[in-house]
Amino acid sequence: MINLVILGAGNVATHLFNAFNIAKNTTVVQVYNRSEKSLDYFKKKTNTTTSISELLDADVYLIAVSDDNIGALSKKLLFHNKLVVHTSGSVAMNQIGNNNNTGVFYPLQTFTVRKEVNFKSIPLCIEATKKNDLQLLETIAKSISDNVYHINSKQRKALHIAAVFVNNFVNHLYQKGEEICKENSLSFNILKPLILETAQKAIQLSPEESQTGPAKRNDQEVLEQHLADLHTTTQQEIYTLLTKSIQETYGNKL
Amino acid sequence: MINLVILGAGNVATHLFNAFNIAKNTTVVQVYNRSEKSLDYFKKKTNTTTSISELLDADVYLIAVSDDNIGALSKKLLFHNKLVVHTSGSVAMNQIGNNNNTGVFYPLQTFTVRKEVNFKSIPLCIEATKKNDLQLLETIAKSISDNVYHINSKQRKALHIAAVFVNNFVNHLYQKGEEICKENSLSFNILKPLILETAQKAIQLSPEESQTGPAKRNDQEVLEQHLADLHTTTQQEIYTLLTKSIQETYGNKL
Repeated sequence: MINLVILGAGNVATHLFNAFNIAKNTTVVQVYNRSEKSLDYFKKKTNTTTSISELLDADVYLIAVSDDNIGALSKKLLFHNKLVVHTSGSVAMNQIGNNNNTGVFYPLQTFTVRKEVNFKSIPLCIEATKKNDLQLLETIAKSISDNVYHINSKQRKALHIAAVFVNNFVNHLYQKGEEICKENSLSFNILKPLILETAQKAIQLSPEESQTGPAKRNDQEVLEQHLADLHTTTQQEIYTLLTKSIQETYGNKL
Repeated sequence: MINLVILGAGNVATHLFNAFNIAKNTTVVQVYNRSEKSLDYFKKKTNTTTSISELLDADVYLIAVSDDNIGALSKKLLFHNKLVVHTSGSVAMNQIGNNNNTGVFYPLQTFTVRKEVNFKSIPLCIEATKKNDLQLLETIAKSISDNVYHINSKQRKALHIAAVFVNNFVNHLYQKGEEICKENSLSFNILKPLILETAQKAIQLSPEESQTGPAKRNDQEVLEQHLADLHTTTQQEIYTLLTKSIQETYGNKL
């Protein structure tokens, strides 16, 4: 049995706790959080603490707090030579204080407390300074996910940027779509099947094969009409830039 | 039984044919296409023709050809006072020649010949100049889909633009994500669960509730690092503009 301590009680910490809690060969022996209140969810399920000095002995310490606090929290740890990993896509592995062995355990997914996720399909990106630590991370990663990747720090940074494009920016375009619907007394529901099919199609075929529309066809008449019909400067800027980028991709003259 | 003639043999025509072919109260009595070759798929299933003068009598003529050809084809029709509809999101209803009654039958979905779709979930946007024609379109629409909407021409134009945002532009961001992966020897597979979850989350919650990331948090350190790490000017332009737009949405200072 591999013993884990989770530091943090937010979205990522909660989802990781739930996944490890039902996995066969791992036990979360403790959850630490600075504030007592956020520990309520965990109290009936495992040991909890708000004090760094009361951390239990464990094989791996998983720091799942906000990016800004990872460095400071790791430097407060009182023990030495244990494996301490963070769960962030954008924080360097060496931000973890150097009294301990370091690693990264980065789940590439968007988490919301009130929406369950199937952890088995979530890619887990692992990295460690020591080879046997990497093996230990791989064991615990495979206990909760079928998609485990060895990713170095440079790749992880790139992956986090790619995730901003396909998650943050894509979601923002959904919001722009909803905005255009509202401006024209249309329900956002009408776009939902298209949103889902667009994602499924890019996954099953590829984004390149899936691309359609006036920008790829270089249909100037439709492009100009769309620009004229948009209500806000920001909508027009997004339309212009992404149209230009699609045209560059498919080699159309601007 | 409602008799239909489909004009066109491309993606939309094929998917509509397949849907009407298995619907209980509709029959596609004929498929017309200018070139013989594209009719192969339909020949064993219904009557086909390459000649406008040989069009059979029907209750509804569905024009599913490229946007540019809708007007010209409709004006070549030799009959009068029949219901002729097109299937385009961006072409005005009055582009259909005025010897006949006009309407629109617009399926809001992205179609690929070699990828099957479940038509029941596809929104069908219908419009007609005459009230009884609209009722007829509603009957045939409901025979193949559970999502039928009465959408006027102004709304349909807006909807087409919204579809460009949530389909064409979103797919292009997937392609940028894939590009960033390739630049760093990462498999695009690693992003796929995130792409799917992003779509499902926006649908189940809302895009507004689903938004996360450095732009929304106004995390300047991460934003600057990401910009510096991007390889192409276009990637940087997209990153800058969509970050600005997210920040505007959530009221962060630029």
